[in-house]
Amino acid sequence: MKLATLQNGQRDGRLAVVNRTLTQAVWAPAPYLTLQLALDDWQQASPILTALSQQLEAGALASFAFASEACLAPLPRAYQWADGSAYVNHVELVRRARGATMPDTFWTDPLMYQGGSDDLLGPRAPIVCPQVDYGIDFEAELAVITDDVPMTCPPADAASHIKLIMLVNDVSLRNLIPPELAKGFGFFQSKPASAFSPVAVTPDELGEAWQDCKVHLPLYVHWNGQQVCQANAGVDMVFNFAQLIAHVAKTRRLGAGSIIGSGTVSNTDRRQGYACIAEQRALEMIEYGAPRTPYLQYGDTVQIEMCDARGQSIFGRIEQVVQPLGQ
Amino acid sequence: MKLATLQNGQRDGRLAVVNRTLTQAVWAPAPYLTLQLALDDWQQASPILTALSQQLEAGALASFAFASEACLAPLPRAYQWADGSAYVNHVELVRRARGATMPDTFWTDPLMYQGGSDDLLGPRAPIVCPQVDYGIDFEAELAVITDDVPMTCPPADAASHIKLIMLVNDVSLRNLIPPELAKGFGFFQSKPASAFSPVAVTPDELGEAWQDCKVHLPLYVHWNGQQVCQANAGVDMVFNFAQLIAHVAKTRRLGAGSIIGSGTVSNTDRRQGYACIAEQRALEMIEYGAPRTPYLQYGDTVQIEMCDARGQSIFGRIEQVVQPLGQ
Repeated sequence: MKLATLQNGQRDGRLAVVNRTLTQAVWAPAPYLTLQLALDDWQQASPILTALSQQLEAGALASFAFASEACLAPLPRAYQWADGSAYVNHVELVRRARGATMPDTFWTDPLMYQGGSDDLLGPRAPIVCPQVDYGIDFEAELAVITDDVPMTCPPADAASHIKLIMLVNDVSLRNLIPPELAKGFGFFQSKPASAFSPVAVTPDELGEAWQDCKVHLPLYVHWNGQQVCQANAGVDMVFNFAQLIAHVAKTRRLGAGSIIGSGTVSNTDRRQGYACIAEQRALEMIEYGAPRTPYLQYGDTVQIEMCDARGQSIFGRIEQVVQPLGQ
Repeated sequence: MKLATLQNGQRDGRLAVVNRTLTQAVWAPAPYLTLQLALDDWQQASPILTALSQQLEAGALASFAFASEACLAPLPRAYQWADGSAYVNHVELVRRARGATMPDTFWTDPLMYQGGSDDLLGPRAPIVCPQVDYGIDFEAELAVITDDVPMTCPPADAASHIKLIMLVNDVSLRNLIPPELAKGFGFFQSKPASAFSPVAVTPDELGEAWQDCKVHLPLYVHWNGQQVCQANAGVDMVFNFAQLIAHVAKTRRLGAGSIIGSGTVSNTDRRQGYACIAEQRALEMIEYGAPRTPYLQYGDTVQIEMCDARGQSIFGRIEQVVQPLGQ
């Protein structure tokens, strides 16, 4: 099942069930008018939405044309957005570039940060940043949406709480990060609004590509039309989504609709490219002593997409342009 | 106007308007069945709810008895919870106790962290913690709720976005903080669910005590029935709520219903006591070379309350007992 939230003038949009090829959709019925309402009551909602999805796929329903342009984020605002750094290779590389070592515990204890979730952008929303010299970067990731997760939920149980999967562009303002992290309280101004793929899909939509709570498929990133990443999200993911959820739930329960991110996808095989500019700059720093690739400029475009073995886009495409404020 | 969210078996509860002495209440009318729904449409909702409040005060409405025990948090889940450390004295003291100095910029650049907001506790909810040796601490604070705030909103404009004020117990797990902050990404496991006062009030309810976007009244904390704090929240607050909002909005817009916290209230005048145990332990560390006051134990109670000049409780009382998981 694939779900999208379409613009309807309301803050939370309107939930729709989308077909596998992302061409047709039907509205979700009341009381599941928004994705959050469905997640709040997922045990009841899921079979109803699944049945609709099957009928839609069978051509048994009057449907309407689906357009990613009309999408908000699957959850245009959420109650929880926790992002990991599960591709530890990325963390090690960025640290090495600035002459820092990485504690060995980073291979066993997930690094996660608490994100802000009141403004989650749709797949075509611009990346609005008041100053280009903040060092605007993309971060192509995967994320899952959970139902209610109890406190101290172990990884073995966490898998069953993964209800939906989607793509994320976790925009980062690189030049704000060092002074902000130096203050000791983590990210805030350096992590503006993130953008999400047109649809969120149930794990079964991924077939055999969903294994061990990882998505074993390449993630494609295009920057100004040029492909810069084809890293496989199932490779080098040191902590799977179940482990990330368990980390988050150590001292708290999670409410239905919590979003848990993987962190920037990164393969140790450098031929797979980079899912964030910071990683490329780190490699340049190590090789040449200085970064050569600039961060995003106003007018730049970023596209993020993942396709199945037959080349069919699974989540639809995130496609954003960088803009100054007030444009 | 005073607003409360009462338990009704739903995740977001049901919005009620409460009288000034916190004894009687009336239900908010549709479509304002929850506080978030009212905040989403505050310009329309506010005059309707204000009129109800005035009629309730005048005894012109059939009302029901109000009980803090029936309250959820004013927002039982929210889209944004950003907490500051506006009482810089507290930060300096805690750092001094561990032999660290504080950068001078902390007096001019607010220290804020991104909190998790999917599980905001009601005023009588227990503090549930799986292990007492995590070092459970209370933090008595004030917080405001905003409407929509535009990106780069300056402090002078931010004041007008403050719609409601409430009390918070920002529970912290002190022994998890050093290793977590050492990882560099800020708090996560060390900041479990926070609890909120029975009612949230509009700034006008504070009369002259609301000045310069600060609440100029003593905040009372009782630990196991003994008063440990009477610090005035208007004293030593280095950044007011407008400045905190502007800090948060530097690179993002804020959605309606965003909660912005002050951080632990702290007066340089030590006779006013402590709003968190960590501060008392820091003083003991400085004076005796070791802390003497233990953190919270299972069964301990914490009460947080603020009263007006006539002794009337403004927000109702937060009153929590510390419990292990599964009790």
